[in-house]
Amino acid sequence: MQDQNQQAYDRGTSIFSPDGRLYQVEYAREAIKRGTASVGVRTADGAVLAADRQVRSPLVEEGSIEKLHRVDDHIAVASAGHVADARQLVDYAREQAQVNRLRYDEPIGVESLAKEVTDYIQRYTQSGGVRPFGVALAIGGVDPDGTPRLFETDPSGTPYEWQATAIGGNRERLMGFLEDEYRDGMDLDAGVALALEAIGEGDEDGTVDSEAVEVTVVDTETHRVRSLDPEAIESHLAELDLEGEADE
Amino acid sequence: MQDQNQQAYDRGTSIFSPDGRLYQVEYAREAIKRGTASVGVRTADGAVLAADRQVRSPLVEEGSIEKLHRVDDHIAVASAGHVADARQLVDYAREQAQVNRLRYDEPIGVESLAKEVTDYIQRYTQSGGVRPFGVALAIGGVDPDGTPRLFETDPSGTPYEWQATAIGGNRERLMGFLEDEYRDGMDLDAGVALALEAIGEGDEDGTVDSEAVEVTVVDTETHRVRSLDPEAIESHLAELDLEGEADE
Amino acid sequence: MQDQNQQAYDRGTSIFSPDGRLYQVEYAREAIKRGTASVGVRTADGAVLAADRQVRSPLVEEGSIEKLHRVDDHIAVASAGHVADARQLVDYAREQAQVNRLRYDEPIGVESLAKEVTDYIQRYTQSGGVRPFGVALAIGGVDPDGTPRLFETDPSGTPYEWQATAIGGNRERLMGFLEDEYRDGMDLDAGVALALEAIGEGDEDGTVDSEAVEVTVVDTETHRVRSLDPEAIESHLAELDLEGEADE
Amino acid sequence: MQDQNQQAYDRGTSIFSPDGRLYQVEYAREAIKRGTASVGVRTADGAVLAADRQVRSPLVEEGSIEKLHRVDDHIAVASAGHVADARQLVDYAREQAQVNRLRYDEPIGVESLAKEVTDYIQRYTQSGGVRPFGVALAIGGVDPDGTPRLFETDPSGTPYEWQATAIGGNRERLMGFLEDEYRDGMDLDAGVALALEAIGEGDEDGTVDSEAVEVTVVDTETHRVRSLDPEAIESHLAELDLEGEADE
Amino acid sequence: MQDQNQQAYDRGTSIFSPDGRLYQVEYAREAIKRGTASVGVRTADGAVLAADRQVRSPLVEEGSIEKLHRVDDHIAVASAGHVADARQLVDYAREQAQVNRLRYDEPIGVESLAKEVTDYIQRYTQSGGVRPFGVALAIGGVDPDGTPRLFETDPSGTPYEWQATAIGGNRERLMGFLEDEYRDGMDLDAGVALALEAIGEGDEDGTVDSEAVEVTVVDTETHRVRSLDPEAIESHLAELDLEGEADE
Amino acid sequence: MQDQNQQAYDRGTSIFSPDGRLYQVEYAREAIKRGTASVGVRTADGAVLAADRQVRSPLVEEGSIEKLHRVDDHIAVASAGHVADARQLVDYAREQAQVNRLRYDEPIGVESLAKEVTDYIQRYTQSGGVRPFGVALAIGGVDPDGTPRLFETDPSGTPYEWQATAIGGNRERLMGFLEDEYRDGMDLDAGVALALEAIGEGDEDGTVDSEAVEVTVVDTETHRVRSLDPEAIESHLAELDLEGEADE
Amino acid sequence: MQDQNQQAYDRGTSIFSPDGRLYQVEYAREAIKRGTASVGVRTADGAVLAADRQVRSPLVEEGSIEKLHRVDDHIAVASAGHVADARQLVDYAREQAQVNRLRYDEPIGVESLAKEVTDYIQRYTQSGGVRPFGVALAIGGVDPDGTPRLFETDPSGTPYEWQATAIGGNRERLMGFLEDEYRDGMDLDAGVALALEAIGEGDEDGTVDSEAVEVTVVDTETHRVRSLDPEAIESHLAELDLEGEADE
Repeated sequence: MQDQNQQAYDRGTSIFSPDGRLYQVEYAREAIKRGTASVGVRTADGAVLAADRQVRSPLVEEGSIEKLHRVDDHIAVASAGHVADARQLVDYAREQAQVNRLRYDEPIGVESLAKEVTDYIQRYTQSGGVRPFGVALAIGGVDPDGTPRLFETDPSGTPYEWQATAIGGNRERLMGFLEDEYRDGMDLDAGVALALEAIGEGDEDGTVDSEAVEVTVVDTETHRVRSLDPEAIESHLAELDLEGEADE
Repeated sequence: MQDQNQQAYDRGTSIFSPDGRLYQVEYAREAIKRGTASVGVRTADGAVLAADRQVRSPLVEEGSIEKLHRVDDHIAVASAGHVADARQLVDYAREQAQVNRLRYDEPIGVESLAKEVTDYIQRYTQSGGVRPFGVALAIGGVDPDGTPRLFETDPSGTPYEWQATAIGGNRERLMGFLEDEYRDGMDLDAGVALALEAIGEGDEDGTVDSEAVEVTVVDTETHRVRSLDPEAIESHLAELDLEGEADE
Repeated sequence: MQDQNQQAYDRGTSIFSPDGRLYQVEYAREAIKRGTASVGVRTADGAVLAADRQVRSPLVEEGSIEKLHRVDDHIAVASAGHVADARQLVDYAREQAQVNRLRYDEPIGVESLAKEVTDYIQRYTQSGGVRPFGVALAIGGVDPDGTPRLFETDPSGTPYEWQATAIGGNRERLMGFLEDEYRDGMDLDAGVALALEAIGEGDEDGTVDSEAVEVTVVDTETHRVRSLDPEAIESHLAELDLEGEADE
Repeated sequence: MQDQNQQAYDRGTSIFSPDGRLYQVEYAREAIKRGTASVGVRTADGAVLAADRQVRSPLVEEGSIEKLHRVDDHIAVASAGHVADARQLVDYAREQAQVNRLRYDEPIGVESLAKEVTDYIQRYTQSGGVRPFGVALAIGGVDPDGTPRLFETDPSGTPYEWQATAIGGNRERLMGFLEDEYRDGMDLDAGVALALEAIGEGDEDGTVDSEAVEVTVVDTETHRVRSLDPEAIESHLAELDLEGEADE
Repeated sequence: MQDQNQQAYDRGTSIFSPDGRLYQVEYAREAIKRGTASVGVRTADGAVLAADRQVRSPLVEEGSIEKLHRVDDHIAVASAGHVADARQLVDYAREQAQVNRLRYDEPIGVESLAKEVTDYIQRYTQSGGVRPFGVALAIGGVDPDGTPRLFETDPSGTPYEWQATAIGGNRERLMGFLEDEYRDGMDLDAGVALALEAIGEGDEDGTVDSEAVEVTVVDTETHRVRSLDPEAIESHLAELDLEGEADE
Repeated sequence: MQDQNQQAYDRGTSIFSPDGRLYQVEYAREAIKRGTASVGVRTADGAVLAADRQVRSPLVEEGSIEKLHRVDDHIAVASAGHVADARQLVDYAREQAQVNRLRYDEPIGVESLAKEVTDYIQRYTQSGGVRPFGVALAIGGVDPDGTPRLFETDPSGTPYEWQATAIGGNRERLMGFLEDEYRDGMDLDAGVALALEAIGEGDEDGTVDSEAVEVTVVDTETHRVRSLDPEAIESHLAELDLEGEADE
Repeated sequence: MQDQNQQAYDRGTSIFSPDGRLYQVEYAREAIKRGTASVGVRTADGAVLAADRQVRSPLVEEGSIEKLHRVDDHIAVASAGHVADARQLVDYAREQAQVNRLRYDEPIGVESLAKEVTDYIQRYTQSGGVRPFGVALAIGGVDPDGTPRLFETDPSGTPYEWQATAIGGNRERLMGFLEDEYRDGMDLDAGVALALEAIGEGDEDGTVDSEAVEVTVVDTETHRVRSLDPEAIESHLAELDLEGEADE
């Protein structure tokens, strides 16, 4: 429980606390921790995004629990946090990608896209009357020159580039795992395995239900976003000895 | 009764609480629980929407207690919660459906419509000076390619796709019933029966008054929204042994 | 007297209370109860609106205490609550009726009109900086196809259709009377009698002063709004044995 | 002194109190009571407006203490309350009268004018950021068809038509007098006398200083606003035995 | 010191207190009392404005302590209160005077000008987000038809016409003096003398420093604003036996 | 420390306190006192502006501590208080000077410029949502007709003309010195000396570091703003026996 | 911990405290202190910018921790504080540089650029509804005439020119070091060494990890922004005996 002093400064997006903090941005980070985890891994031949889909009911269409989003042919996004906010940012990202194609007749670079999105996020931290976006994004893709890239955005609007990163619940545990296990030059298959293992780290019994995980890759050969089908995920999990029991 | 800390963060739509929650959105969900229940079921050959019409007086025209709304030829909506808010969203949905026909000369997909509506809802959760919509919608219909679809929206602006869902009062009891009884591949008639039984679950004596329930279906053959007439409903209820006493 | 918790949520139109209520809308309903009663009755051959005119002084022109308003040739409105607010809604209704004639070259339907008005009312419940309308309307008329219709609006912006309804002070007593006495298929004369008797129910000595009551009908033959002159009202009252002493 | 509960609702124009009241509108009525009285009388052959001019200093030009205002050839206005607010409403009334002449090439009806003004007043009671008008108007004139009319506006924006009315300080005492003494069919001279006597009722010693009272009439013959000169007033007062001592 | 109740209503320009007062307007009147006095006198052959210039330092250019302002050829203004606010109103007055010349090709009447200015002032008392003007003006001039006029404006936006008036500090003492000494039909020279004597009344030792007083006249012969030079003022003072010691 | 009553009125720019004060304007004056002093002197053959440059570090470029600003060929400005606010006003002044040249094809008068700037300042004291400018300016220059002029602006937006003035920290001590030592008709060199001595008065040991003082003059011969180079300043200081130790 | 008085004034950007301070601007300065340090050094043949890159994880791409930004061919910026805010200012700076090239067909001067940026910053300190920028910039470059320049901006919007400066965490320690060690006329290589040593001063063990430091120079020969590659930095560090252990 925070003290009276903190309360005096944490209800307006557009004010600093005496120690120079923006509390609403920090609270938006808490909204992210309330979500399930997503993981991004950059490999030598592509970017990997994986997401833990929390299934609330056996009747819900798992495909509609959107954690991984295609932004353009060559860029995908994993989100964690407030779902409706994530959808706004993904829509904005798609628009920026289209604008780039219309304006320059070529696909947008992954870094350019990440910066367009973070500029948009920042504006929601400096003006009154709005709140920050309660969502983090991992943006993975392949640049027009064939380089795989992986970026992350946070509610303050800061873009960072990563070799591998985790967003959402249990972030610290997953980051520790990634820092231990990530190897330079690993190939796409190893990247998918690493991402699945990381997701498993966030699970209590260390297993992963193939129905409850989504994996999307963008490889340097095709420059195309591609979702792994459940069988492919299952075979990965079997190989990793991570198969969990389906909740159904 | 909530504590002082909560009160500090729950009166502005555009702020997060220290633990990353948006209280006004959560309170809007309470407004939904105050309404009567609606149920949606997706079957192999169509979507079913059913609603419990709370009749306040024998003098009120039951037809005017709008819980089921035709949005386009092939899509209908069931609402639960704040009635006047529901009407705004239904009007918005109708406009989007018309815009789609004008722009692309074809009916809007059910998922596209659900996302247009949730984007609209989300905007009322991030800016100051407005409140969230105090209403949930079940959006059922048949896609131009003949696939039946069923979506749900909530006050945060998140769209989920369901095989069967319940919104409004007694949601948890009705969802439990649906999870137990829903079967893959059930036909439209079975879907209507399931929906009526679910509505009955929310009633104290487990019966359903044919006057107090509305049922609308969209089948994959005609792609047309069709309301069941009272006789059809009554015959279903008789078959299900669910006939209740009319209040009149 | 309300407790501290309620006070925290009842001063802004655009916020929900923790239990999902909109207090300003509920308080606007209290403003309606402070007014005198109006009654609407739908009969087989027309709609009837009657209003109790509270005369504050013998010097006031009774005709200027507006409770019944002509909206178009075929639609009239009875109001209860904040008089100045009622005038705004009536003006808005008249504009909508005119717009319909200009756009489609035909009279507006009674339901369409009721929905235009309630959409307008709803907007005053979701944005900050304004208050809800403190008024209820009973909208009676005859549709272009000859069907008599009767609608009611409330401060939340919800439209309901009624066979007979009462708005304003003593609503509950009058509704009980109407529920007991309303008969399907009653003719216009019986409707006028029922409306006058209902108004009398709200009076302490059960009588009605012909000077203090206004009656307007729209019949299915002429499709025209017509005010009953005092003699016609008096003869009705005499027949009903409801003649009261004039206050003058 | 009002209690804490009232204080919670009386500082914003655009909110209702729990019992459905608009406190700012009620406080604006108090501003009117702080002013001196004005009286309006409708007679068979014209409308009479009279006003008590409180002279603060012998050096002030009495003609500049505006209580009676010519709005158009055939309509005049008496005001009570906040002087500067009154001027705004009178200006607005004059504009509306001119607009009517330009648009329809005929003088505006007295009732139409009263309603234009009250619609304008109402808007200041429903939106935030403004306060209600702290003024009441008595609007007297002769309709184009030769009928004398007398209307009154209040801070809520409600128009009422009167045979005779009083606004401002001591309203209740003056209204009682008017109710006792007003006679149907009285002529213009009798109306002037009644108005002057009513003004005298508000005075402590029951006399009226001819310098401190203004009288304006609009008769059905000329359809013209005409101010009575001091001699005419004095002769009326002499006849009524109401001559007071001038303060000078 | 005001009590808690008053404090609840005195911080917003756009609200009434429960007894119908506008506290911000009343506080703006206090700002005027903090300034030095100005005096206006209307005589048979012109208007006189005189102002006490409080000299804060011998180094300040007295001419820059603006208390008297030329608005047009035939109208001048004396101000008291918040100097910067006065400048805004004088600028507004000048614009209105120019607009009149452009539109009607003739000089603006003194009363018209006073009303334009007070309409402008009133708007700052009815809307939120602004404060009233903390200044009073005495507006003196000669109408196109040769009549000398003298008006006064206050922070509420009320215009009054005067034979003689005082604004600013010590207003009550000066008004008393003017009421005692003003005579109908006095000529311009007598008016200048009266104004100077009134200014002297506000001084502790009853004398007037010719350097610290400004006098402007508009006579009916020339219709021109004319400032008296120090010698002329000094000769007046000598005649009146009012010569004070210069502070320098 | 101020009491509770003051606190109630000092946080909004657009409200008066009960005694007619504008606290935010007064607090802005405190911001000026926190700055170093600037001095302006008007002499027979030109205007002199001098400023004390507080050097925070030997590494800062003294030239970038802007206290004296060229506004146009013939007008310069010295500022004291909030540096960033001063820059806005200087930019505004430059724009006005350019506009005057474009519109009238001649240099702006010093008084006209001062009034344009103070009108701009005043607007920041009457509307909500902004704060006053925390800066005072001394505006010195030579009018097109060859007259040297010196004006001062304060946060209320009042312009005064001076023979000599001091703004910023220690204003009272410096003003006292200037009042004692200023002589009518002194020439530009004497004015520079007086300004430097005044700056020295504000220093603890009464000396002036030639590096820490800026001097700008506008003479009546050239009508050009000219900054004195360090050698010129040093020779003045030597003559005045005011040479201080450089801090470096 | 600040007292109640301070709290009363520190939550609105647009108000002064009673002692003339703008607390939100001061709190924004605290946000800067929370960041890592950046250093700027102006040498005889170019400007040097160096930044300490705090690496949060070995997986983050160091290149994406942006502390040094290229604004135009000849100008670079180092930032300290809120990263997302810095990006906005850098974008604004880039736009201004492009606008200058388009408008005048030549590179923008370093001082002009610094002033455009500080004007932009100042606006966020005077209006309500926004917060100040929580960032400081060191702007280094070479003017079109070949002069190296170094400016600094702070949250108040004040530009200062420096020979050498430090922004961000440990500013005071680093400034002290720079004041001791900076020598006039030092060449670019000496400037790079000085900047690296200063960064080392901020480190606990006084060493600098070549991976964790960025250096950018703009030399007077090429007028081009150039980033030093890690080898160049390492050789500098070796020469300075400052090599630290890499964290990886």
